[in-house]
Amino acid sequence: MNVTVHGRTRHYRTVTFDRARNAVLLVEQRLLPHEFKIVAARNFRETAAAIRDMVVRGAGAIGATAAYGLAQGALAFHGSDLEKFTSHLEIVYRTLRAARPTAVDPVNAMIQVLIATAKGKTVAERQVLALAAAEGFADENVRHCEAIGRHGVKLIRNGMKILTHCNAGWLAFVDIGTATAPMYAAQAQGKKFHVFCDETRPRSQGATLTAWELAQQKISHQVIADNAAGYLMQRGEIDLVIVGSDRTLARTGEVTNKIGTYTKAVLAKRHSIPFYVAIPLSTIDWHLKSGFDIPIEERDEDEVLGAWGVKPGSKSTGHSPKSAKRIYVRITNPTSDARNPGFDVTPPELVTGIITPAGIFKPKGLWPRRRELGFTD
Amino acid sequence: MNVTVHGRTRHYRTVTFDRARNAVLLVEQRLLPHEFKIVAARNFRETAAAIRDMVVRGAGAIGATAAYGLAQGALAFHGSDLEKFTSHLEIVYRTLRAARPTAVDPVNAMIQVLIATAKGKTVAERQVLALAAAEGFADENVRHCEAIGRHGVKLIRNGMKILTHCNAGWLAFVDIGTATAPMYAAQAQGKKFHVFCDETRPRSQGATLTAWELAQQKISHQVIADNAAGYLMQRGEIDLVIVGSDRTLARTGEVTNKIGTYTKAVLAKRHSIPFYVAIPLSTIDWHLKSGFDIPIEERDEDEVLGAWGVKPGSKSTGHSPKSAKRIYVRITNPTSDARNPGFDVTPPELVTGIITPAGIFKPKGLWPRRRELGFTD
Repeated sequence: MNVTVHGRTRHYRTVTFDRARNAVLLVEQRLLPHEFKIVAARNFRETAAAIRDMVVRGAGAIGATAAYGLAQGALAFHGSDLEKFTSHLEIVYRTLRAARPTAVDPVNAMIQVLIATAKGKTVAERQVLALAAAEGFADENVRHCEAIGRHGVKLIRNGMKILTHCNAGWLAFVDIGTATAPMYAAQAQGKKFHVFCDETRPRSQGATLTAWELAQQKISHQVIADNAAGYLMQRGEIDLVIVGSDRTLARTGEVTNKIGTYTKAVLAKRHSIPFYVAIPLSTIDWHLKSGFDIPIEERDEDEVLGAWGVKPGSKSTGHSPKSAKRIYVRITNPTSDARNPGFDVTPPELVTGIITPAGIFKPKGLWPRRRELGFTD
Repeated sequence: MNVTVHGRTRHYRTVTFDRARNAVLLVEQRLLPHEFKIVAARNFRETAAAIRDMVVRGAGAIGATAAYGLAQGALAFHGSDLEKFTSHLEIVYRTLRAARPTAVDPVNAMIQVLIATAKGKTVAERQVLALAAAEGFADENVRHCEAIGRHGVKLIRNGMKILTHCNAGWLAFVDIGTATAPMYAAQAQGKKFHVFCDETRPRSQGATLTAWELAQQKISHQVIADNAAGYLMQRGEIDLVIVGSDRTLARTGEVTNKIGTYTKAVLAKRHSIPFYVAIPLSTIDWHLKSGFDIPIEERDEDEVLGAWGVKPGSKSTGHSPKSAKRIYVRITNPTSDARNPGFDVTPPELVTGIITPAGIFKPKGLWPRRRELGFTD
């Protein structure tokens, strides 16, 4: 999407590849919303470190980063020995996979690259094919988000107020995003609407990433405490909810997403407000038979016990070249502990529809159409 | 309740009166949970400032503070001219009332003191009566909270996990609190239970005040993000919800409380978890006919845009004599705004019962028994 730095507006993807330098270029997401900066990972180990250290996060974005990292590793190989090349590529693959072991997107993206690469007869051919496949993965990710936007835009009517939770925006993908895709498409059609961004404690991705994205795209929005959505729904101030998902079970229609998503779905149901989940096809889990089988990560309690921010004294414009240094403050009573589940599971009866690149489905409508959606036994 | 400072455990009320110094002694709540300190307001203007500047907060606590402040003003009067005394008392009353204009407790408490004072024939008699009435108000507040504890304790069974929101603890009253009263009573009976404290963004009173209170009383507890309660309910990890209220409408059974309370009530209903509201009788509004008539304060957006805490480097034990300096950090994207409604209204069908000093009532059961609960036309 477009980002304005020092008054200059330019289009950026979260992840791109610099052939001349054999480098993966990434939006340094840990500095947002206080600073916008592109960093270069100059070899596959640096790319793996960028995934591990959360320079880049979000399902589609780390998928594309891993795909580029694999191509980067392939291109760095010197010589023409196919066997040595293959052994080298295996090390690159394992290194990148280990950077975020629970995620499924990097693995799927890299398998796509490996399959394409194997078709080359020489090392040189395989190197070219690896990069082409990585570019292909990134481009496909963008096309999928565009398709989500085309389908989802019909849900947004002029004057609507839309609630979103966490960040399923372009920063989490290569471009455009999933939950944000219908919003960006609606804006392009000249529709007027307002977005409420749940702060999304404890990591505040709504207040930091989603709010920053929407501000950059000049979409009318406000941040609200996670506690406030119920009140706004009571007062008729929310017309539509759109969120993303980390894993959607095709067999049950259950939606896993950032902690607090379930709560918003329960509230939306009570107020008869449509609740949509926007996902790429890669987010669909065709295998699990119950939401209770989804491992829910219990994260570090420091996330709940405090918060990260900048001192208002060091007020940046949001895009200062100088780093607006983020600091952590402890909010909670120093002798208290916290529980910190990272995700929750929303049952299908609370979900109005799943917006995919292939159209909008009822949660239970994914499984019957599994063949056309890419499911293979 | 008991507070342990430097290894010494002592009983404190949030508000007491020092006759020798004619001073109102207050727990300096703005320093909690990082420092526990008693401060003296040495004249009625300082007492009014303490209310205005949030040294003391919470319905019952500011009621008692205003009552003591009025007595303090009366005692500071020199002379025996009844007319001058009365004019002086009116200035004191107006000064204290203006300190928190929207609150109803200070006014009710001071009226009680004024009525008692008027029975004295001389200035000296009236001064004595004023202080006795203020002490009476504070003692009655404590007795009411004790009675809430006696009724509410029956709801707590061994091994239960209880959710609470915001702070309706002893810090908000003179002692014991309302939502916490059943917990403290259950602890005294040797019952074992665990409390989840909602962080309660944006001001985080659950993470700061309630967590501190429970830690001081050695009650097993954990802080959770406001987003996490739904998840815990799904997993069967919450058995009971007890919250306080800022205003409960007797005619409709609607409960006004800190933003996010309504959301927890909706979730509790979905999971068939009992949802109780603990209130003193002074919190009952006998007049309003609709929750939509309750003015909902929209507070400063900086509360949502950032948070207050201490640097973990300045890690205090929570009770260090040195001030653990609180700082404000901006969390949200610097170019985004926020909406910040302070309260919400929970309808009676979501409330299992109202725990009052006079027993536990259905929300719609208050009005039919209004005479015995102190309602006068």
